[in-house]
Amino acid sequence: MNFEHETLGQRVFFGSGKANEYLKQEVERRAATNIMVIASKREMVRAENVLDRVDVSIVHDDVVQHVPFHNAQRARRTAVDNDIDFVVSIGGGSATGLAKAVALTTGLPIVAVPTTYAGSEATDVWGITQGGKKTTGVDRRALPATVIYDAQLTLTMPPELSISSGLNALAHCVDSLWAPHADPINAAMATEGIRALSQGLPAVAATPDDLRGREHTLYGAHLAAVAFASAGSGMHHKICHALGGRFNLPHAQMHAVMLPYVLAFNATTVPAVAERIANALGSDNAVEGLSALHTSLGAPKALSDYGLAESDLDEAAQFILPLIPASNPRPVTPENLTRLLRSAWAGDAPTARA
Amino acid sequence: MNFEHETLGQRVFFGSGKANEYLKQEVERRAATNIMVIASKREMVRAENVLDRVDVSIVHDDVVQHVPFHNAQRARRTAVDNDIDFVVSIGGGSATGLAKAVALTTGLPIVAVPTTYAGSEATDVWGITQGGKKTTGVDRRALPATVIYDAQLTLTMPPELSISSGLNALAHCVDSLWAPHADPINAAMATEGIRALSQGLPAVAATPDDLRGREHTLYGAHLAAVAFASAGSGMHHKICHALGGRFNLPHAQMHAVMLPYVLAFNATTVPAVAERIANALGSDNAVEGLSALHTSLGAPKALSDYGLAESDLDEAAQFILPLIPASNPRPVTPENLTRLLRSAWAGDAPTARA
Repeated sequence: MNFEHETLGQRVFFGSGKANEYLKQEVERRAATNIMVIASKREMVRAENVLDRVDVSIVHDDVVQHVPFHNAQRARRTAVDNDIDFVVSIGGGSATGLAKAVALTTGLPIVAVPTTYAGSEATDVWGITQGGKKTTGVDRRALPATVIYDAQLTLTMPPELSISSGLNALAHCVDSLWAPHADPINAAMATEGIRALSQGLPAVAATPDDLRGREHTLYGAHLAAVAFASAGSGMHHKICHALGGRFNLPHAQMHAVMLPYVLAFNATTVPAVAERIANALGSDNAVEGLSALHTSLGAPKALSDYGLAESDLDEAAQFILPLIPASNPRPVTPENLTRLLRSAWAGDAPTARA
Repeated sequence: MNFEHETLGQRVFFGSGKANEYLKQEVERRAATNIMVIASKREMVRAENVLDRVDVSIVHDDVVQHVPFHNAQRARRTAVDNDIDFVVSIGGGSATGLAKAVALTTGLPIVAVPTTYAGSEATDVWGITQGGKKTTGVDRRALPATVIYDAQLTLTMPPELSISSGLNALAHCVDSLWAPHADPINAAMATEGIRALSQGLPAVAATPDDLRGREHTLYGAHLAAVAFASAGSGMHHKICHALGGRFNLPHAQMHAVMLPYVLAFNATTVPAVAERIANALGSDNAVEGLSALHTSLGAPKALSDYGLAESDLDEAAQFILPLIPASNPRPVTPENLTRLLRSAWAGDAPTARA
């Protein structure tokens, strides 16, 4: 047993319909007097009542995807010019990302109120886009001091997006178990995440307005982010990012299709990990359990449905091979990677044979 | 799902025989130039090689149990007078406790190198004794910034002490599952702790020099401390502290005797928790699994063996009853508490009947 693990300190509140209460509590605890809220116009309408117990100095709604540099600069100036002492972000990855950009130069504490399963609120990873290029980094100032999870705020997320976003979180959990910085502590978080997501997602799919399903999924998404930020990208994410970047395949669908294949590929090499996953899925077998979950959610099944041509498979394997982390438990060869991709392309039953 | 969880930020290194490497890495990362080591003379002999890659300015070996106030003041003065910028504690709870006392007034960062399963290195709880009275508190400055776990340093801990100390950690894990601030996140840590300790302790008992058993136990003790610091004291610890304080029964033995009875008492009220414990113990049944583990370790079985008289049981129940946390899943009455204590006194098989 040999590892280095960094636990990020963060206060986490979790309660449906309680975001306003928790926010008031945090504002009082920190004796904040000059609050800047970062939220898009749309989020402000949806999440208005989150702010109904605190005095807000400024609402900054200039929220743009991928945090363009000029938007970051404007938000930073607004914070400084107005002597802001507390930043509240409400929304998905874009709002959280802009708050992180502000914290990065000002050192201001962030309270993040996520309304999606993106998970960036639980990490110290920031990203800013300039000249079409996204720069990312890791900085302790970017970590929200507090996160307030209120599953009621996620009820308006469309079911289909909820499922694909939740499956992305599930992929973060599973993939982190063999990622480069996998360790027993982040594995425990990932396992708990698998457990929560496998309970939550079918409930979200069956009754999207059911708060319990939303709660489990939101909680699972939090753990997925914690585990992934700690363990790093494993084989699954490297494949998905490569396919997305090179062949312009849709991100969420990639995750949904690939995960059972990568799991089947690695499972027999690491039976203890597979047993852990099976257990968290409430199944006797990890691959079967995951496939059954995917099927029950109507998840995408084959790369061929998303614009990848059979003739692209060899090129894809060549492109992906050098990106696979050395930490992957089963050695990856041009042959078994091509077989893996071919199975995923055709939508065959996932097996270790790849 | 409704909770508030505070994750304490900490860097954790884990590797047998690697403490000196990790310490060097931390000293370099922080550019520390003036290091104060807190360790008793005995620990310094045992753990000498931990320091063989760094320059130490001062070794402070005036380490006394329960951190007497005057000792704390002396250590603080030593740190200030010598412009110390980094405190390294090596040892059990006393060394860690003294380092915490120093950090409390100086704000200096601590690297803790534990040599026991005490676990205080993973918490922000401090304690200082003055005039025979121990004051404790919670302060973020008391939390070691970094912990270096090196199971080789625990090899000299006598097997019997290792087992009783490990069972105390196991009790922290189990009890935290129904403690006042139990939440899904600390429950995940506690569950992982149960898993690790139930693997590690039998190995320590069978072959005390076996590093793998020591590693699992040390890792489990870390998780136990994290879970317990977050969840607080549950019914089990309230009973043990009361019995220890009122009837002067030995701490470690109390824990070992009581845990299966408290588990049996609560298990049928919270079947999902019991299943989780069973699973972590690798058993079909939580109570049976725990009893089997205790038996295999030769753990103490009856309060009557430790000086408690049968005639004390009613008084003990009366004394303990108001201390039981309201969070306990099964309501505790004078009757069922007396039955519970009587079973534990006699060493009967633990059942829910109490």
